[in-house]
Amino acid sequence: MSSASSQEPFSAEAYFASQSPPANLADDLQRVKEFIAKHRDAGRRVVLITSGGTTVPLEMNVVRFLDNFSAGTRGATSAEYFLKAGYAVIFMHRQFSLQPFSRHYSHSTHPFLDFLEVHPSSAPDATIADTEVKVTQRVVPALLPILDAYKRTMSEGLLHMLTFVTVDDYLYLLRGVSKEMGVLGRNGMLYLAAAVSDFFLPRNKMSEHKIQSGKGSLIIEMDQVPKVLKPVVAEWAREGFVVSFKLETDAALLVPKAQAALERYGHQVVIGNDLQTRNRPTSTSTKRGEGFETAWLRIDPALTTPGAGAGGREVKEIEEDIVKELEGRHGRWIERG
Amino acid sequence: MSSASSQEPFSAEAYFASQSPPANLADDLQRVKEFIAKHRDAGRRVVLITSGGTTVPLEMNVVRFLDNFSAGTRGATSAEYFLKAGYAVIFMHRQFSLQPFSRHYSHSTHPFLDFLEVHPSSAPDATIADTEVKVTQRVVPALLPILDAYKRTMSEGLLHMLTFVTVDDYLYLLRGVSKEMGVLGRNGMLYLAAAVSDFFLPRNKMSEHKIQSGKGSLIIEMDQVPKVLKPVVAEWAREGFVVSFKLETDAALLVPKAQAALERYGHQVVIGNDLQTRNRPTSTSTKRGEGFETAWLRIDPALTTPGAGAGGREVKEIEEDIVKELEGRHGRWIERG
Repeated sequence: MSSASSQEPFSAEAYFASQSPPANLADDLQRVKEFIAKHRDAGRRVVLITSGGTTVPLEMNVVRFLDNFSAGTRGATSAEYFLKAGYAVIFMHRQFSLQPFSRHYSHSTHPFLDFLEVHPSSAPDATIADTEVKVTQRVVPALLPILDAYKRTMSEGLLHMLTFVTVDDYLYLLRGVSKEMGVLGRNGMLYLAAAVSDFFLPRNKMSEHKIQSGKGSLIIEMDQVPKVLKPVVAEWAREGFVVSFKLETDAALLVPKAQAALERYGHQVVIGNDLQTRNRPTSTSTKRGEGFETAWLRIDPALTTPGAGAGGREVKEIEEDIVKELEGRHGRWIERG
Repeated sequence: MSSASSQEPFSAEAYFASQSPPANLADDLQRVKEFIAKHRDAGRRVVLITSGGTTVPLEMNVVRFLDNFSAGTRGATSAEYFLKAGYAVIFMHRQFSLQPFSRHYSHSTHPFLDFLEVHPSSAPDATIADTEVKVTQRVVPALLPILDAYKRTMSEGLLHMLTFVTVDDYLYLLRGVSKEMGVLGRNGMLYLAAAVSDFFLPRNKMSEHKIQSGKGSLIIEMDQVPKVLKPVVAEWAREGFVVSFKLETDAALLVPKAQAALERYGHQVVIGNDLQTRNRPTSTSTKRGEGFETAWLRIDPALTTPGAGAGGREVKEIEEDIVKELEGRHGRWIERG
């Protein structure tokens, strides 16, 4: 594999002119508009969280696609802490990636059916409609706070779900939602945790049917996806508090690349993660005057229990510290506005 | 995108010599061996079902990968009907793809938390440990038969789970499990429903770190994955009843390609699916003497309710007919052996 040709990346305008919008875009944005209006009227802060990986279809009738690794843990976990901090949350995520609350029990080798017990009625004239299905008592103490928080969140209308699959879906939604967030002024935050493809296959280079094998090696040439942080900050969400992520497997590149991104796009915070040692350590970089301020967030290893999963309540999650840090910075930024 | 170079595909031997086995292969195969031995002793037929798509990592430290579209519906649904027909099932599936039984409630926009109700105890000295969580009564009638079948299957040890992610994992597992199935003689069936990549990136062409963007377009050149149906039939599972799948977006290619595969590999059945109209119609092709026998399985459209999901019990599933057809053919093939 090699990276060749020094062709200029598409501009955002050229990209949208080349690629088609998702079918339900107008409906999706209408519901987002209503959600935002309701919380603006309530004086509540709103955060757009993007989460999970985007796909790049290689065929019109999709059989094969390029994907970016992301279960959606960072986004789904952060959403719970933003809700706890009083934010309303637009959770824009890859279809079937982890979601807040249900994440504690999904993507597990134990399907939730393992936690269910059948209790037939003992009444002599009982029918199937009298049979009860209960969650086994052993898991109830860990489940209850999650279930309570989920039901409260849903009944108060604090969480709005949006899904994407392809990088096209993602970019059209991001542009649309960012613009809708304009009415929030500085009360809006964009927390861009999705793993977005850097490359895509323009429609005019795509084959209509499944690529036939048996003809030797496969060569795929893809173009660069535009760097949309630029229009997000400069055009679409001019007053929003914008947080981007850098994920690197080479730790030495983390802070220099975070600082370069802040210089280039002029947004508020870059959160850097070393993929090799995910969850710890994590850096947050902010431009401060002529220089940069970089804070390192670390989890005390004694507080992490690998694979604790459903018992997550006893385990410290780095997202708790990230959201606390951002909530403070967002607040000071609103005051300065 | 184009398919260039007429390079010969890797042989299976060259592939395994180039690519590394998954870390837990020996343990996985030991457990498969025990599962097979138990059911052979009970005189039970055993089917290996492969399900879901394989990935092709583009980097050593995986950020990007090529994937094949498959939720795993065909494999997970078929597994339930094979269990109903008395088979023991080895369910070798892509991690987090659909699984038998839980498929009715996973990959849904309604997490199962929506079906749960909290019932605190009314006793004056009640604690959190006395709170009950029940499944809402409305969904119990649809849930009960699924939960019953799941619990019976698990308590009788009829379902063995194996997971893969990459095409390397898949091929090493397929070879190992196929060989283990040899002790079953003609009582073993291989139902190869996974969506396996036709192309891969040999380890020596892979970059160690995340591919850096910002340097123009990306060119990926991949080699062909060996056609392992050949060694499956000729070497690894010589007495097994082998069922392969053809998925095409161009319906005109379906039957000719199925017949060509039967000629080429000498196995028992090819099931053809038109991706455009999935679930209907489906063809099964078998070599019969000098010619071919092709049966078409069709679902009466009146019996399909799109998106019926959890209410799937009222809906006819094509997998019921596929498994019934295969059970009969497998039986006749055992008698002829």
